[in-house]
Amino acid sequence: MLRDGVLRLEEVEPPRPGAAEVLIRSRACGICGSDLHFAEHGPRVLEASRASGQPSETDLSEVIVLGHELAGEIVEHGPGCDARLPVGARVCPIPFGLRDGVPHIIGFSNHFPGGYGELVVAPEAALLPLPDGLDIRLAALTEPMAVGLHAVEQAELTAARDTVALVIGCGPIGLAVLLCLRARGVRHIVASDPSAARRELAERLGADTVVDPGSEPPFPAWIESATKPELEPGPFPGMPDLPAFHPAVVFECVGVPGILQQILVGTLPRTRVVVVGACMEPDTIEPILAINKQIELRFVLGYTAEEFARTLGMLADGTLDPRPMITGTVGRDGVAEAFEALRRPENHAKVLVEPWRQGQLEPV
Amino acid sequence: MLRDGVLRLEEVEPPRPGAAEVLIRSRACGICGSDLHFAEHGPRVLEASRASGQPSETDLSEVIVLGHELAGEIVEHGPGCDARLPVGARVCPIPFGLRDGVPHIIGFSNHFPGGYGELVVAPEAALLPLPDGLDIRLAALTEPMAVGLHAVEQAELTAARDTVALVIGCGPIGLAVLLCLRARGVRHIVASDPSAARRELAERLGADTVVDPGSEPPFPAWIESATKPELEPGPFPGMPDLPAFHPAVVFECVGVPGILQQILVGTLPRTRVVVVGACMEPDTIEPILAINKQIELRFVLGYTAEEFARTLGMLADGTLDPRPMITGTVGRDGVAEAFEALRRPENHAKVLVEPWRQGQLEPV
Repeated sequence: MLRDGVLRLEEVEPPRPGAAEVLIRSRACGICGSDLHFAEHGPRVLEASRASGQPSETDLSEVIVLGHELAGEIVEHGPGCDARLPVGARVCPIPFGLRDGVPHIIGFSNHFPGGYGELVVAPEAALLPLPDGLDIRLAALTEPMAVGLHAVEQAELTAARDTVALVIGCGPIGLAVLLCLRARGVRHIVASDPSAARRELAERLGADTVVDPGSEPPFPAWIESATKPELEPGPFPGMPDLPAFHPAVVFECVGVPGILQQILVGTLPRTRVVVVGACMEPDTIEPILAINKQIELRFVLGYTAEEFARTLGMLADGTLDPRPMITGTVGRDGVAEAFEALRRPENHAKVLVEPWRQGQLEPV
Repeated sequence: MLRDGVLRLEEVEPPRPGAAEVLIRSRACGICGSDLHFAEHGPRVLEASRASGQPSETDLSEVIVLGHELAGEIVEHGPGCDARLPVGARVCPIPFGLRDGVPHIIGFSNHFPGGYGELVVAPEAALLPLPDGLDIRLAALTEPMAVGLHAVEQAELTAARDTVALVIGCGPIGLAVLLCLRARGVRHIVASDPSAARRELAERLGADTVVDPGSEPPFPAWIESATKPELEPGPFPGMPDLPAFHPAVVFECVGVPGILQQILVGTLPRTRVVVVGACMEPDTIEPILAINKQIELRFVLGYTAEEFARTLGMLADGTLDPRPMITGTVGRDGVAEAFEALRRPENHAKVLVEPWRQGQLEPV
């Protein structure tokens, strides 16, 4: 549990399912970068939500059990459930709950403890049954993979086969984007990350070129791969008009200051940039570069319910296979140590908490 | 003419039409904010072009005759023209020329003097004939109005009648956007400008609400007017999903640091922001606000040839009537004085240079 920015193992009051809610035993729950960020910079996260017009009622001085990337089994139905899925059914919840009409994110709320704990409460209507045969560890990746799918959907690729994508940052979200691009039929993907282990992972998951941004900027390799855009007929012979949007797209999956400006400097004119990395600090750009190149910056967040359900289906039928992303598992008593390890994530992508057991962080 | 940042009236070598080029007598030529900017910050403008991958060959220590918003009459055809438009024909050139395969903007080039001077050379293929009866002063507004049309096109409005648009900045480009929004069928427009004269102009041109950003931010009035977005069915009953893009759109037509951040703070979630204002300085934003609200920033520039031609047609048939925007005219000897007046543009929108006559800046 998390309280006042301190993460520790502690017995808490087990949650009880309210009306139309279900009690779930968490079997596997991913550690998300946003969990680390929330643990370290909780006040700043809540302030950003408030400034964005979405004030959170979360009280950082009260108990918060983290974990929104979870899969588990139904233990008990609360009053008013239709129990379409029986006790024992394996489920993955879309991690949102309602309390008195106010939405909460499971795992970032005082009212909806997350999947780092043994028991979770979720609205019955938010549960998706796991297809038979789907490894529950893989099911726990539905949430981050849905973030990747949403980002790729928001790119609105019109010519996936000819698209050349640049994925900046190969943490779990960058890798999820990469897998979803492959599933979408994109054949040319350049991926960039300073970590050698993550670059190797990106290659295993389908990047055909990987770049270490510490030794060279990723844009030349990407521009090299990019299909030349079809230029529209110009205002007069010999003078090309503005090209339509390139079949080239950049995904920003880092979220630290300076990356947007690097993209504006390095990218091709008429590029669509999908910004998935959530930069919490002020960031400085030169808008004239974006104007001169007619860049589009699409800031994206989360997923729709349809995308979440579709992601689960794609995991079950093998369209998405993120198994190599799971680099470690940890029992309920090893979470704080795992957080320390993930603060220097060179050798990890996704670590799963298995709250039903004890044990320190172990590589998979 | 401009040289080394100094603007003055001086006799220069008259231009000669090259192959497939036509000599035009400039009858009216708008003073554009970018002309003022170029005169004052020429090196910075050229540096931004270079940084954007579009290096300009313009030499600031050589003569530059400004003026890219022009209309005039054909004086002479160069070799190889087909002379489909005869000498004397009234024309409006798309202000681009080619020299040795290198594109130049008429009025920002050492090779293609602009319409502040009496004679201009333009490619024959770049000329649009003026429809009969179209006031040549109005025709000179084709170029800035095309910038507005392009911005509105790039907004990709899908439900124009229900769209609520916020236009930030009511200089000539903001007013052009406003007129083009009206022509596009947008009924609800909020316009914001610190100048009372410009707010009045915005009202005359069709804004139904005007706001002085010095006394109140423009967003509440806009949000008040905005149609509530249709929420998609949520992941579970009672929990709305992400809304699709609002039928609400913001046009940033100022181009100074700080405006983008004001927009991120003030705007509705899922808003498309069309950035037309060309901010030359570094600008700081908080990306997390854009992420949390899933904002799209579309940076736009210029127009296509088709949009330019369509704009001229809309001026001729009265679909666009920007006559109230013309707030002054000036002879060739009054340009430097007009520049001084336009540096504090509270009482001016578009000033036209009439290089065929003498005379100081006079209100219209």
